[in-house]
Amino acid sequence: MNVLWIFAHPDARSLNGSLYREGIDAVTGAGHQVEVSDLYAMKWNPVVDAGDYGRDDGERLLVAPASKKALEEGTLSPDIQAEHEKLARADLVVMQFPLWWFGPPAILKGWIDRVFVRGYAYGLPDPDRPGRALRYGDGGLAGKRALAVVTIGGTAESYGPRGLAGSLEELLFPLLHGTFFYTGMAPLPPVAVHGTNHMSGEDYQAASAELRRRLAEAETAEPIPYRTQNGGDYDDDVLRPGAAPGREGLGAHRARRT
Amino acid sequence: MNVLWIFAHPDARSLNGSLYREGIDAVTGAGHQVEVSDLYAMKWNPVVDAGDYGRDDGERLLVAPASKKALEEGTLSPDIQAEHEKLARADLVVMQFPLWWFGPPAILKGWIDRVFVRGYAYGLPDPDRPGRALRYGDGGLAGKRALAVVTIGGTAESYGPRGLAGSLEELLFPLLHGTFFYTGMAPLPPVAVHGTNHMSGEDYQAASAELRRRLAEAETAEPIPYRTQNGGDYDDDVLRPGAAPGREGLGAHRARRT
Repeated sequence: MNVLWIFAHPDARSLNGSLYREGIDAVTGAGHQVEVSDLYAMKWNPVVDAGDYGRDDGERLLVAPASKKALEEGTLSPDIQAEHEKLARADLVVMQFPLWWFGPPAILKGWIDRVFVRGYAYGLPDPDRPGRALRYGDGGLAGKRALAVVTIGGTAESYGPRGLAGSLEELLFPLLHGTFFYTGMAPLPPVAVHGTNHMSGEDYQAASAELRRRLAEAETAEPIPYRTQNGGDYDDDVLRPGAAPGREGLGAHRARRT
Repeated sequence: MNVLWIFAHPDARSLNGSLYREGIDAVTGAGHQVEVSDLYAMKWNPVVDAGDYGRDDGERLLVAPASKKALEEGTLSPDIQAEHEKLARADLVVMQFPLWWFGPPAILKGWIDRVFVRGYAYGLPDPDRPGRALRYGDGGLAGKRALAVVTIGGTAESYGPRGLAGSLEELLFPLLHGTFFYTGMAPLPPVAVHGTNHMSGEDYQAASAELRRRLAEAETAEPIPYRTQNGGDYDDDVLRPGAAPGREGLGAHRARRT
């Protein structure tokens, strides 16, 4: 398979840098092709503005329609186009980052903000449902798998189902469900490396082995079983009474709990 | 009171720009003082790197300790120091943004990543609990209130408790709980303006009136009742069995449902 590995840490000498090299080594060693977007090394610009869409500031900027028009006219900023070309070749998209304020660093958030333009990643008409767009299980990136690899200072317990920080899968819902699944990608359960402020050599070996194990099974592992928009569980964009009866919260959007 | 209004939209002629001016007008009209951080107008740099901490690239960058050292030595980047000075004067912090990929635009995420350094917003020792830091209800920004003002393309129903997108309060948990509450601020329920792709003049009037109403009560309104770290509901960073018994998910970290 072809892997696109997006990496967002400011220092290659970090724990993240080591895991990044391990991951690339594991994937290439298994015979896969890898392309990378090392966002800090690329000095990636994370800020959406009119320049992304080949426009000047003289006209009012409506971001979503402007991005769609630029996509159709081939006037998207060349750095965005280059990422689209990498994505076109990818079967698996890996996003690796340290958890900062319970989400991706700004440089990675801005990779998503700028690259996932309307008409490309989302906003494609659903041929079976006039007036609706393909999303949540289908979309511009359908057919790809997506894996978040996340390093976290806190303990696994504090990010568990009743942990003080909130469960990691729900903290990452905007990425896993709102970005990966929304655009049609199959979101794999994230790889989480905890306790990164106090890692021993053994801890590192364990993290590295776990990353390699998860990468080895990434082609076949079961994605998070989110309910699809068109799978019959939603009516007017709300869960039908018979789907997850009586439940509220992000967990209700999973078709199964495990 | 003193208000710090942080604004993150690329175009002042947008819906967000109009609401921003309305909000400032409402707050000043009520006799409050307002300072602003208009992140696009300031060309805010959202990318954490070694330069933030007065360091060159010759040394390995451990972000959290490096940020704390620079804070203590007064070598934080001047743009970060300027935001600390604004925050020091603020009783209410407003963050206004369009919801992009179910979270803040990168320029705002990077304001948080860069400004909320260790030893300032978090990582302050808890005098009552040796070895623990003040957080989740207490911290460097204790005593302030925080309000997110968010514009959203989708309908209110789709962001409701069983809505397809996930409930807005839970989608924003990394900001409301993981950032505002973590640093000691009292998080108010967000102001959400829905259906922004198709707003009539009447819709705009309704949104504007709601924003004014919420700002008028911001000094006294009940914050989201998240459980505090030290309030007795957590043991080893996990909810005790008697707190939200049998429940999982982000909603369990509220002491009450409404």
